[in-house]
Amino acid sequence: MSPTAELAETGREFYRRGWARGGSGNFSVLVARRPLRLCITAAGNEKGTLDDTNFLEIDDDAEILQGFGRPSDDTLLHLSIYRLRPKARSILYSQTVSGILLSDKFYVDGSISLQGFDALRGLAGVESYEQTVRVPIVENSTDQIALSHVIENVLIENPNIHGIYIRRHGLYSWGETVEAARRNIEIFEFLFEVTARA
Amino acid sequence: MSPTAELAETGREFYRRGWARGGSGNFSVLVARRPLRLCITAAGNEKGTLDDTNFLEIDDDAEILQGFGRPSDDTLLHLSIYRLRPKARSILYSQTVSGILLSDKFYVDGSISLQGFDALRGLAGVESYEQTVRVPIVENSTDQIALSHVIENVLIENPNIHGIYIRRHGLYSWGETVEAARRNIEIFEFLFEVTARA
Amino acid sequence: MSPTAELAETGREFYRRGWARGGSGNFSVLVARRPLRLCITAAGNEKGTLDDTNFLEIDDDAEILQGFGRPSDDTLLHLSIYRLRPKARSILYSQTVSGILLSDKFYVDGSISLQGFDALRGLAGVESYEQTVRVPIVENSTDQIALSHVIENVLIENPNIHGIYIRRHGLYSWGETVEAARRNIEIFEFLFEVTARA
Amino acid sequence: MSPTAELAETGREFYRRGWARGGSGNFSVLVARRPLRLCITAAGNEKGTLDDTNFLEIDDDAEILQGFGRPSDDTLLHLSIYRLRPKARSILYSQTVSGILLSDKFYVDGSISLQGFDALRGLAGVESYEQTVRVPIVENSTDQIALSHVIENVLIENPNIHGIYIRRHGLYSWGETVEAARRNIEIFEFLFEVTARA
Repeated sequence: MSPTAELAETGREFYRRGWARGGSGNFSVLVARRPLRLCITAAGNEKGTLDDTNFLEIDDDAEILQGFGRPSDDTLLHLSIYRLRPKARSILYSQTVSGILLSDKFYVDGSISLQGFDALRGLAGVESYEQTVRVPIVENSTDQIALSHVIENVLIENPNIHGIYIRRHGLYSWGETVEAARRNIEIFEFLFEVTARA
Repeated sequence: MSPTAELAETGREFYRRGWARGGSGNFSVLVARRPLRLCITAAGNEKGTLDDTNFLEIDDDAEILQGFGRPSDDTLLHLSIYRLRPKARSILYSQTVSGILLSDKFYVDGSISLQGFDALRGLAGVESYEQTVRVPIVENSTDQIALSHVIENVLIENPNIHGIYIRRHGLYSWGETVEAARRNIEIFEFLFEVTARA
Repeated sequence: MSPTAELAETGREFYRRGWARGGSGNFSVLVARRPLRLCITAAGNEKGTLDDTNFLEIDDDAEILQGFGRPSDDTLLHLSIYRLRPKARSILYSQTVSGILLSDKFYVDGSISLQGFDALRGLAGVESYEQTVRVPIVENSTDQIALSHVIENVLIENPNIHGIYIRRHGLYSWGETVEAARRNIEIFEFLFEVTARA
Repeated sequence: MSPTAELAETGREFYRRGWARGGSGNFSVLVARRPLRLCITAAGNEKGTLDDTNFLEIDDDAEILQGFGRPSDDTLLHLSIYRLRPKARSILYSQTVSGILLSDKFYVDGSISLQGFDALRGLAGVESYEQTVRVPIVENSTDQIALSHVIENVLIENPNIHGIYIRRHGLYSWGETVEAARRNIEIFEFLFEVTARA
């Protein structure tokens, strides 16, 4: 399966679960590191019915190399993550009821903290369920450039995080493969639901 | 895909999600503006298994031009929306636990208010998550003519709304395409669930 | 589609929704009225994977006319319903979290009362959402003969009911067709969830 | 269907329901009793997409006889169950929000107690809904050998249990067939949800 086909399959599954709605968030996959090139869903695409025509290939300046459509507002955010996480090859997004509720509740704390759950061991680099995993929460902004700078600071200051929550928006998570990024999202959304219902 | 096939596909998906049950609510799509002609599900049809035989083509007076079955009680309501929303080409309906609970809870306020959620940007004309989106709530009635007059007043007084909730009944939303109306429903139902669980 | 194929399809859908688990409850369909003959799922069959081999044809004395397996404990209950509801041609069963919680909560009241919901109009004979629909709750029993007598009394005393809840067990509902019985179940389970979450 | 194909099908269904996420828990099926040989999912495999290449055949010392990949940490736990439950031929695992919440809440009691629910009769050996069924809760551990000893003690001291909950981890249950083990999991997870929402 090609990487964009994997993104499309992930979109179908996230849509089925009610984790993806058109317009919010984007999926991407790295094409090359130097110079940076990536495939990213175009603005406003439904994630449940993605096909090859829904992706843009862009460069480091968010210039379109291939594909039709407008790059999404949060393309800058994807570029920031790829620049500051040299191992990341895919970035995914999810938007759920539990996640949004937690992003509001723990906004003052600055992060959602998860500890003691065996499921955490599915995250890359987490060896024990006793380890505390934090997902930083950042305020949403209508200024995408300002938002991407905030994201960059969060990435620099938190070298071990697996994802970032944009308040009342959704979760971005990345991995070395589409499968790894998807596993992160599935683990986080599960533990968000546990935490929201606790 | 033909517009009625899109309605059928939407019905299957809404049924799968538990948003549609036979008897409540109807889906429609515009066939022509002048004179007004539309295809609408006949009374009592299950939304999960719609096919071409489940639609009626009707005119501005709710007279049947084609198809078998009885027009639903709320056909007048569809006609009111098409008359007062010249851009609308499709109207959809959903019925969920969270929506019904909110329609009761916020009935005294007259509307369900949504603000601060990034998902709102998926609604036509909503540019920022900071914008407040209101869904007016109207009382249900056994008198369909009276109900359609109430709906007309709500549409006239609220030029920017994307949907109307009939208390303890369900959500009507419209769009320039079936896809746009469906996206509205998906966004509203998601945010209803967030609000109900908050 | 044959009536047993409709039951199998209903079982797959109820299983998908998490409304059916092996061992609890049974589905049936009438074969003939005089003398009474019906097809009913055999004891302990998983409802998600029914095929023709999972049904027994039985007579009025619960004697097996065709098929393999043991009749379920609640076969008597099905016979009681068919005898006392001459229009019923199918009986279905569902078991959900919300239903079980309500059957406990409203046990002292003797029934779950539903009123004011538009969805109620999908039940046969319910013309207005203002009508009150009651689902009697009966205590479960290890004595199936005693339980079927209780059910008979409930049916005689409540001529207009569409279903009976066995406490901490599940919902039995019947209709003139498999589709009508299924619609009843879908409406009740939806409104049980609304009521449980209210 | 071969036993491993049944495990794969179970994995797809558990994944669909949100009961299985990669990395946590494992499924197994007995190949032979004397000497003990079993097929078990390899470490870190996604349960939603299992195929024949995702299983290891191992012996009583957890030595790999066939297959590729690393045995999971909890292989010892499976071996303990097969040794102390001579009738068990399959072990399954599930991880749900309700289960995890109950494993925390009732940890001080030592078990999750279920009583009065008709669904319990689907468990092997439970004849009446009046019988109390207990699921012992054990603390998770980073020391798998210590954990398997704890599990062994629980199995010895509780001859009639159908499953064990590892706190904040998930449910292990076993049966004489894959189908029986799966039925146990479905019944427990349903009743966990009822109990968590009560």
